[in-house]
Amino acid sequence: MTPGLMQTTPLMISGILTYAAQAHGAREIVSKLIDEPIHRYDYAGLGRRSAQLAHTLERLGVKPGDRVTSLAWNTHRHLELFYAVPGIGAVLHTANPRLFDEQIVYTINHAESSILFFDRSFATLVERIAPQLTTVRTLIMLSAEDYETLIAREPETYPWPSFDENAGAFLCYTSGTTGDPKGVLYSHRAVVLHAMAGGLNSAFGFTAFDVVMPCSSLYHATAWGLPFSAPICGAKLVLPADRMDGASLHELIQSEGVTFTGGVPTIWTMYLDWLEKTGQRPDTLKRVVIGGSAVPRAMAEAFKRLYGVQTLQIWGMTETCPIGVVATPTPALAALGEEAMDEAIWTRQGRLQFGIELRVETEDGTEAPWDGETSGALLVRGPWVVRRYFRKDADAARADGWFDTGDIATLDANGFMRITDRQKDVIKSGGEWISSIDLENVAAGCPGVKIAAVVGVPHPKWEERPLLVIEAHEGAAVCKADVLDYLAPRIVKWWTPDDVVFAAVPLTATGKIDKKVLREAWRTHLTS
Amino acid sequence: MTPGLMQTTPLMISGILTYAAQAHGAREIVSKLIDEPIHRYDYAGLGRRSAQLAHTLERLGVKPGDRVTSLAWNTHRHLELFYAVPGIGAVLHTANPRLFDEQIVYTINHAESSILFFDRSFATLVERIAPQLTTVRTLIMLSAEDYETLIAREPETYPWPSFDENAGAFLCYTSGTTGDPKGVLYSHRAVVLHAMAGGLNSAFGFTAFDVVMPCSSLYHATAWGLPFSAPICGAKLVLPADRMDGASLHELIQSEGVTFTGGVPTIWTMYLDWLEKTGQRPDTLKRVVIGGSAVPRAMAEAFKRLYGVQTLQIWGMTETCPIGVVATPTPALAALGEEAMDEAIWTRQGRLQFGIELRVETEDGTEAPWDGETSGALLVRGPWVVRRYFRKDADAARADGWFDTGDIATLDANGFMRITDRQKDVIKSGGEWISSIDLENVAAGCPGVKIAAVVGVPHPKWEERPLLVIEAHEGAAVCKADVLDYLAPRIVKWWTPDDVVFAAVPLTATGKIDKKVLREAWRTHLTS
Repeated sequence: MTPGLMQTTPLMISGILTYAAQAHGAREIVSKLIDEPIHRYDYAGLGRRSAQLAHTLERLGVKPGDRVTSLAWNTHRHLELFYAVPGIGAVLHTANPRLFDEQIVYTINHAESSILFFDRSFATLVERIAPQLTTVRTLIMLSAEDYETLIAREPETYPWPSFDENAGAFLCYTSGTTGDPKGVLYSHRAVVLHAMAGGLNSAFGFTAFDVVMPCSSLYHATAWGLPFSAPICGAKLVLPADRMDGASLHELIQSEGVTFTGGVPTIWTMYLDWLEKTGQRPDTLKRVVIGGSAVPRAMAEAFKRLYGVQTLQIWGMTETCPIGVVATPTPALAALGEEAMDEAIWTRQGRLQFGIELRVETEDGTEAPWDGETSGALLVRGPWVVRRYFRKDADAARADGWFDTGDIATLDANGFMRITDRQKDVIKSGGEWISSIDLENVAAGCPGVKIAAVVGVPHPKWEERPLLVIEAHEGAAVCKADVLDYLAPRIVKWWTPDDVVFAAVPLTATGKIDKKVLREAWRTHLTS
Repeated sequence: MTPGLMQTTPLMISGILTYAAQAHGAREIVSKLIDEPIHRYDYAGLGRRSAQLAHTLERLGVKPGDRVTSLAWNTHRHLELFYAVPGIGAVLHTANPRLFDEQIVYTINHAESSILFFDRSFATLVERIAPQLTTVRTLIMLSAEDYETLIAREPETYPWPSFDENAGAFLCYTSGTTGDPKGVLYSHRAVVLHAMAGGLNSAFGFTAFDVVMPCSSLYHATAWGLPFSAPICGAKLVLPADRMDGASLHELIQSEGVTFTGGVPTIWTMYLDWLEKTGQRPDTLKRVVIGGSAVPRAMAEAFKRLYGVQTLQIWGMTETCPIGVVATPTPALAALGEEAMDEAIWTRQGRLQFGIELRVETEDGTEAPWDGETSGALLVRGPWVVRRYFRKDADAARADGWFDTGDIATLDANGFMRITDRQKDVIKSGGEWISSIDLENVAAGCPGVKIAAVVGVPHPKWEERPLLVIEAHEGAAVCKADVLDYLAPRIVKWWTPDDVVFAAVPLTATGKIDKKVLREAWRTHLTS
């Protein structure tokens, strides 16, 4: 090679802060807080206070490479930790308060954090787990008394250092349902490239006029990187703390002129219910990005037809920083007409983004055609994909970079990806695959059904066959025959569940159907 | 530091090609050609033909690190060179046909190119300079007979290699008016980051629905990186070859639905004239990015008021890949009202972009305040800024990365930059600076004036004082008193030129006022 002769300036997260403070210094950041009035400042203010926090961290003995944990909601103080901790070369472990106590303890000890910053609402939790924390030596409440007093007298500028862009910046643990949570250690390079990609119109495409309210938790894979994409684009930030109920969200949307928000489907179910009940409308809202689970079609339709809001489905995981694909429109889809485009966008997780490579692999390890039909293991690769979990000896990705997501998916000729199942949930019937998710989606439409869960259970002839577990709405008079009649014209015959049973459907801590429990409970249903 | 554990996938230009072929395979690329019918294909086709070209280059003995020169217009074949040459690890030297013969020869020999690809329209030029080319061993015409025959039988896939992202990819020479042209060697990393930044809404912000026609030459710093930003965003590309006259551009805009174009002011003067003369309108055009020289205010107004087209001013240089700043709107400007925003956007080169750092330095080396008034030397720094010129022993940038652009500028609180002069053209009068550009802009508005040029000439008392050289329109009866009367209410008194003379104004090869010649010609005017 002939070496290039351009500057090799490292990509630093502090560069985002400096940029926003210089180019969009007066652009607002509005934050709700726990038991305190709403807080307003701007990117210049974020720059000053992050500097104060950086000095504070140094004073508390935090050294480059050290880990610091946050147990916090979406607030401006948490945002300051997002910049100050990686800014001085340390690593922010964003602990997930939704985990069980022992898992929270495990992640903090595994991270070997020296300081734990926590919101007031986690005081009891912290009191409970503190005795089991082996490395934490300082507890700091993100409150006016503690946090504010601590940073108050520090200088408002800080000489943010440049260092290896592959240094660790954020430590996010998966909420793995099996085994201990695994730590994914985001580098500065990954976070900055991911934030730039998030700013492109194939993903979020913010302009300086956007007002962005992240309702995905900051502790979940940095809330899709919105705390970084927004300032790169000069967008105003609105942080709702932990108030995700319809009334609170609506108040912020209206008073702050929110144009873009996003979160898991549960939040938007509540919000749409609230809008319907109150007859209110979100006047400024243009786009809602929804991920974490598949977007119910009725939700996307309600947003569009009732309120003129565009739904962007998104798929990603902690291991991908987390943006994998985003369902934004393209001319190829638009050419099909509006209805077909909506259908395509609402039924697919999203399209290929620059920077991420996707591969669907069939069982023999060859690449499946991009035909929208052939499904297989979904692999991802790229500069914001995990290579190895924290403190593990072996790589999580293959030597050639491909990381197996655990999902089963298809890819089509337009680069749109559709998840058809989790690898562990797909039903292998006589060598053919049945998508438990597709079956559930159909069954969920049957009148009287509240939750439909499908699992594969051992079958003497076909290896596995689908069992449909229905939790009915209270008082609904739905029976097995009703369900089978409903399914018959909507699915291919060989997908028909071998039995339909009525029972409460167990959910995981994050609100997903707990298929592990279901499989165990019904394991011998077709064989005994 | 704690090393991050994400993948360190290098940023490769071939990754843009692969992405566009997969995610936007059917999106069109339309190209005019020299003496051939218009050519149409798509990003999948670009992928296939770039692969064929890569195989051809290998067959011709091109090795990683080798240099290959193009002398070509904006066509799809030139675009294929843009991907295939860096794709195999070689370097594409995009020679500038507007230079003098001896400079073209100098750059090709200095690049030590082994192959020269050229458009038919440069056949005579190539014949003329061929005997002086010391390293070129193969000449290939970008024509149906030569280029097409050469690539025709090669395989349509190529295993694009991954290698150090700091490897050289493009070699672009400055058209320095003093001394030999200097080579800037763009790395893969610089080109990819620059392309992503160009895709953000602070710069070009393309969506997949945009139709982009670069009218800046591909050989000029890769035409603002449009050949890379467009495919990253999935935009259709329209390549006008060398046809920059009004009728040709309009035909492409109308037939291909161009939404975005850009080039130097000269092109748009011609196009606006043509529109006025013919009464035609560019129906689909939404934005025109203009750089290379300051945008005349009348041009921006005509585009907006007559045709509803937004003008984006841009500033950059070969040494910055070339995007430095882009004048896109922000809420801070919008708050001033539309007229004031237009004024702000049309009179400033543009605003700070994420990835580029700007610094205005006063004569004592301290940073000037971002007040929109204090001017000084404009310095730039960042991952797509030159570190060292090709085959030089010393860095062009300072040890801390700051590169002196040679411009004098101001920065304001909104991050908007305004060039007030070239460092060598600023007039130093009694320790104060007078902007020759500002004076010229005012004088150009005086009735009868065709070109107004201002240079500083030695003065016994003030060191330098401004001299105004006027080239009047043919038959215009404008005299010194008219000009001074016109200036009086429009400038501060001490900026008043010490003399106004009438003469033909010499221009450089690129159409700029040749101040070097002027200064020499009038050197003793105020002292003799």
